[in-house]
Amino acid sequence: MIQVYTGNGKGKTTAAIGQAIRALGQGFKVLIIQFMKGEEYGEIRVLKNLPNIEVRQFGRPTFVKKGKPEEADIRLARAGLKFAEDKIKEGSVDMLILDELNVAIDYGLLSLTNVLPILQRAPKDMEIVITGRYAPDELMAIADLVSEIKEIKHPLRKGVVNRPGIDY
Amino acid sequence: MIQVYTGNGKGKTTAAIGQAIRALGQGFKVLIIQFMKGEEYGEIRVLKNLPNIEVRQFGRPTFVKKGKPEEADIRLARAGLKFAEDKIKEGSVDMLILDELNVAIDYGLLSLTNVLPILQRAPKDMEIVITGRYAPDELMAIADLVSEIKEIKHPLRKGVVNRPGIDY
Repeated sequence: MIQVYTGNGKGKTTAAIGQAIRALGQGFKVLIIQFMKGEEYGEIRVLKNLPNIEVRQFGRPTFVKKGKPEEADIRLARAGLKFAEDKIKEGSVDMLILDELNVAIDYGLLSLTNVLPILQRAPKDMEIVITGRYAPDELMAIADLVSEIKEIKHPLRKGVVNRPGIDY
Repeated sequence: MIQVYTGNGKGKTTAAIGQAIRALGQGFKVLIIQFMKGEEYGEIRVLKNLPNIEVRQFGRPTFVKKGKPEEADIRLARAGLKFAEDKIKEGSVDMLILDELNVAIDYGLLSLTNVLPILQRAPKDMEIVITGRYAPDELMAIADLVSEIKEIKHPLRKGVVNRPGIDY
């Protein structure tokens, strides 16, 4: 099945990480592919020491500019999608998390036309979890579960900067 | 600061678990108190083997009936709140997760009048993460961050039953 976590509120990536932890506890083999991220967030440090889970990043620490992606960012995102495609073909994991995939599409690093057929080819018993703002309608249409995380309140609005352990 | 994850969509408890994993990776000491839950979900099996995190459940495996809570359920929920209060007074953890606290209030196991002053007394550098549908307005008012997780699509609607690794 395909799960999508989208919306402008905090909780999309953390929901996927929590889903990974739950799945590990039930014996799943989990792979997390992160698009547009190249830094070691707190969760990576913990996850990389756990059995049955692998985290692969396909991004650079620098921010990608919307609509003006650099060649290096496009190349990395495509490599991430290729890696996901291979794992889907092999059926070698029980849960595949595609973190920030929605944003990679929205920012023009990946095209929906390339992404959709890969997802549609996934084995029915593989759980695919996709995160990121701006989930395209066509992706939500093929998903089994969609949660929209809406920001009601966020301390960033009051000038609080990103905090370690909370935001990364 | 106080974070609240509410709404009718999937992703509230998993977001809190993911937040806990991120915090652990940044050296936080984490305590998860679960209200109304007494069963070993997948995440518990993984978390209980990690350092610097403790999970305490204050619920029974059976479902609580809304508006008709049994004495045993009330007693457990109150013990959970007391445990949280002690930890807040001691300031002995960096992150305190109160899973399903909103539901415990909504179902009549705990009263908002007892809960609010305890939360307001928390040290400013303690991160408190509260989950559950039906977050009361008064709680959202004192929170620094509120994310509402809306169900756009859920396979339960199509008759899919709760699945291990995904829903528990």
